[in-house]
Amino acid sequence: MIFLCVAIIYIFLVILKLMEFTIRSRKREDVVDITEQIKKLVVGKKAEEGKAVLVYTPHTTCAIMINENYDPNVCIDILAALKNMIPAGKWLHDKIDDNADAHIKASIIGPSVVIPFENGKMKLGTWQNIILGEFDGPKERTIIVEIL
Amino acid sequence: MIFLCVAIIYIFLVILKLMEFTIRSRKREDVVDITEQIKKLVVGKKAEEGKAVLVYTPHTTCAIMINENYDPNVCIDILAALKNMIPAGKWLHDKIDDNADAHIKASIIGPSVVIPFENGKMKLGTWQNIILGEFDGPKERTIIVEIL
Amino acid sequence: MIFLCVAIIYIFLVILKLMEFTIRSRKREDVVDITEQIKKLVVGKKAEEGKAVLVYTPHTTCAIMINENYDPNVCIDILAALKNMIPAGKWLHDKIDDNADAHIKASIIGPSVVIPFENGKMKLGTWQNIILGEFDGPKERTIIVEIL
Repeated sequence: MIFLCVAIIYIFLVILKLMEFTIRSRKREDVVDITEQIKKLVVGKKAEEGKAVLVYTPHTTCAIMINENYDPNVCIDILAALKNMIPAGKWLHDKIDDNADAHIKASIIGPSVVIPFENGKMKLGTWQNIILGEFDGPKERTIIVEIL
Repeated sequence: MIFLCVAIIYIFLVILKLMEFTIRSRKREDVVDITEQIKKLVVGKKAEEGKAVLVYTPHTTCAIMINENYDPNVCIDILAALKNMIPAGKWLHDKIDDNADAHIKASIIGPSVVIPFENGKMKLGTWQNIILGEFDGPKERTIIVEIL
Repeated sequence: MIFLCVAIIYIFLVILKLMEFTIRSRKREDVVDITEQIKKLVVGKKAEEGKAVLVYTPHTTCAIMINENYDPNVCIDILAALKNMIPAGKWLHDKIDDNADAHIKASIIGPSVVIPFENGKMKLGTWQNIILGEFDGPKERTIIVEIL
């Protein structure tokens, strides 16, 4: 009986723990493909648990987006386009932290995506990958996953 | 008894099928108002099924947005503004597919919207329409709808 | 018995009412921090009610975003960057309403955010605040909150 309780609590903790993970970005502006980590977290989850997967990052200078990563240049182009639109070093917040451009980019892309979910699988399109866009790295970043 | 089972399976399949539809964009950059199709899919759904509607497109060169369509020029202006900010033909991915600008625009707008839902009705504001923004058409595009 | 019914209806109405509130923006382009109002709405809600909080605005010229507000200049920088990218007064819709830039900005930021929720608390990061971005104020704006 005690063993059963401990086992249940352990499984519960593992499940809770599993729904969050960290990655490390390697440079100031970077992209990290987190599709496989999220697939592993949600595989085996039943329909009763929900119909969509929320992917969320609790930071203000990185963001979550969905796009192609078969050609890695797509994501490099996205970083370059954001840099063109939002040049660094000309903002009020730069006096304090010198990363205002990163905050602005993160606000435009947003901290979350919501993906339809069925039979333990996200309904990602053939070319869709889930990407963390880093705008003020290198940093350790947390990603929270919930089934809604 | 068998008839009942068949009927239930049929209704189940119809419901599943209904929560997804396709539309066709007509030119490279285009907007398609999908509000009415989504209203028809969710009308009659009960409160027990959820409190929000997820609208998702599984593609990487189109996106889902919410804005006014009473004056169709609003959406034309949105396409024009994105074109100004993200000119075509100057990106790394263009060597492979010549549509990098479409990928960048889709990442900035995002593939999904989530709308509060009550009594079988989305709580869209008076001027809010749900719009597919096409950036690399003309193409057939799938839209997935889930009640969360 | 009648008293009980009235009490239940009253509590129901209070709950419904509570999940929506209005704020007032003070100028054409403005930011309003709505984090505290939303925290008060969701505090005490049980895990059974859901695993995420949807924050939604039913308007087409304002938007909901998440970013730092410890240094208020971050949000001022976001407004300035959007103004740089999307200048006012050069769009088709301006002939009718003279606020096309506001519609475009609202489409890019989006009308909603979805935040993970656990034990009556949103899992906002240390520096994350929920912000209404106003692009065509001053106006009264409605914010709808749902637990998914």
